[in-house]
Amino acid sequence: MKHGGDLAEAVARHGGAREQWLDLSTGINPRPWSIANFDDGLWQRLPSRSDELALQEAARAAYGVPEQVALVAAPGTQALIQWLPHLAPAGAIAIVGPTYAEHQQAWRNAGREVVTIASLDQLPDDARHVLIVNPNNPDGRIASHNELAAAAQKLAARGGWLVIDEAFADVDPAISAASLAEQWPVVILRSFGKFYGLAGVRLGFALAPAAIADRLALALGPWSCSGPALVIGAAALRDQAWAEQTRARLRVEAAALDQVLGGAGLELVGGTSLYRLVRCPRALDLHAALARQQIWCRCFDWSAELLRFGLPADQAGLARLAAALAEAGAAVSGLTSGRCASPSPSI
Amino acid sequence: MKHGGDLAEAVARHGGAREQWLDLSTGINPRPWSIANFDDGLWQRLPSRSDELALQEAARAAYGVPEQVALVAAPGTQALIQWLPHLAPAGAIAIVGPTYAEHQQAWRNAGREVVTIASLDQLPDDARHVLIVNPNNPDGRIASHNELAAAAQKLAARGGWLVIDEAFADVDPAISAASLAEQWPVVILRSFGKFYGLAGVRLGFALAPAAIADRLALALGPWSCSGPALVIGAAALRDQAWAEQTRARLRVEAAALDQVLGGAGLELVGGTSLYRLVRCPRALDLHAALARQQIWCRCFDWSAELLRFGLPADQAGLARLAAALAEAGAAVSGLTSGRCASPSPSI
Repeated sequence: MKHGGDLAEAVARHGGAREQWLDLSTGINPRPWSIANFDDGLWQRLPSRSDELALQEAARAAYGVPEQVALVAAPGTQALIQWLPHLAPAGAIAIVGPTYAEHQQAWRNAGREVVTIASLDQLPDDARHVLIVNPNNPDGRIASHNELAAAAQKLAARGGWLVIDEAFADVDPAISAASLAEQWPVVILRSFGKFYGLAGVRLGFALAPAAIADRLALALGPWSCSGPALVIGAAALRDQAWAEQTRARLRVEAAALDQVLGGAGLELVGGTSLYRLVRCPRALDLHAALARQQIWCRCFDWSAELLRFGLPADQAGLARLAAALAEAGAAVSGLTSGRCASPSPSI
Repeated sequence: MKHGGDLAEAVARHGGAREQWLDLSTGINPRPWSIANFDDGLWQRLPSRSDELALQEAARAAYGVPEQVALVAAPGTQALIQWLPHLAPAGAIAIVGPTYAEHQQAWRNAGREVVTIASLDQLPDDARHVLIVNPNNPDGRIASHNELAAAAQKLAARGGWLVIDEAFADVDPAISAASLAEQWPVVILRSFGKFYGLAGVRLGFALAPAAIADRLALALGPWSCSGPALVIGAAALRDQAWAEQTRARLRVEAAALDQVLGGAGLELVGGTSLYRLVRCPRALDLHAALARQQIWCRCFDWSAELLRFGLPADQAGLARLAAALAEAGAAVSGLTSGRCASPSPSI
């Protein structure tokens, strides 16, 4: 399973119609910001510079971007992930992992040496750049502002970049390290689609010192985001009330999900309020048992003991998960409670 | 004027509300394919692999792509233009020009040596790659299949690529050189937004041998096109009846536009049925005079004698252009008829 969020794989392996599945395989908010009607001309015209500037202004406010830090919009954070290894000064990168696998793949594809480190304090001397996902996906681990600042300063002295993927930082604005880019060559990635529940729009941002942001903008070229993406993104990012309500709601719902997962005997090892990570000794069997009940969660090719669950959209989904976990636990012995591996360090 | 299609520049310089302007500054079909309602879930979910495959299939049929040639979808041809110089084997590129300026800029930004040549038969020995826009923008010149095949073969012997931007080839399917990619390292770019009148969607394609297409796909990464773009694009590309009617209609409307332009004493020097190129001695004055009447056409920073006109959406627009040209001709002496430069070679 390379990524969550595409039920085609689930349907191909286990059958059923897409609508019958409960998709918990992503960290995408299942209750999206509601898109208002927009002018059809946005599909027809080239995306306008004025709509792009309005989006940038909305994003700066929503993400609390300091005036000295530049911002670039892209058709999804993934587009930025693809470009960064082609634009950063020559040299190896250390990635704090395990984490979202596309970073490593993009840097390797660009011919870069990649080393994985367990935490920022293991920064090797020969790595010019560092990438960290903060909060981390899938375990939700958060690096402190001081840790990030220390790494940024150290890398700056080597002419290297600190890339911080804040794809899930919307759940707590205090996490954002955007201010570091005022002082050092730090690139912050922000995803629109996850928190706003609109991953199909394809919209993401880089916050960085102007010199780096200019290179990214030049690489992306004109009209990189669709006309509707500019307008939908601006309107959603301006909706501060929705964002605050959503942060509060997600916390409540993540706690409810924890109750269901914990009640089924799964050991919670981390997450954010958009996804929860659990450990159990036969995670892949549990993944398959849930899939037979048409519930799709996320397993990992680097661990046979971890599963990640996104939030169900409603109480019915949560109840369905609880029932399916009970049935799976009964059907597959040794899956859960009492038989879990003893606590080991969080990944 | 760097690009057509963004009225903000026009409004900033000459005032008026966007709705009052007649925008003839692009080659985008002013009567778009009609987007049918689609599932809101396309905004919410990550774009699915199955929707991408369906789009690819529709594009292969619409563009007549041979089985041996691979196809990659991107969020606009521009995204492919940005990547190509980072992926092509090291070496200089010769661009047949003057043409769409973004090609040259992308290759220069990537650190490539760029030379401009007047036609394919001037291919310099030290250029590894060649780029040609076919039909060319803005003059509509068409390189023959034999010329393209000869260039492709010559470049292949050097390990170089022939990039053919077929952004406006929809107006005549016979133009497409997709079959060359069966034999040689030829990359064909196809734009969705222009012919279908949906430039805000951001969708384009590369047709190429599998080895090149794989590199492009790897560079673009997953989910490069939005969920709605996949579904809108597939439905439009499957609508063969609309495409045939549109080709016929565009030819009729381009002829009507020629009558108006010629009737105003402008010398027609080329174009496709999505735009017409005229020459007159004081093109920039005429551009400004039309802008004062809130008609926005395309001028060029490399010629003070050429203007490009896109098609008005309707008869009223055409009549408005005719009246504005008459008024501009009267107001600005020496603009048109009888005072045009004598015929000189088409650019």
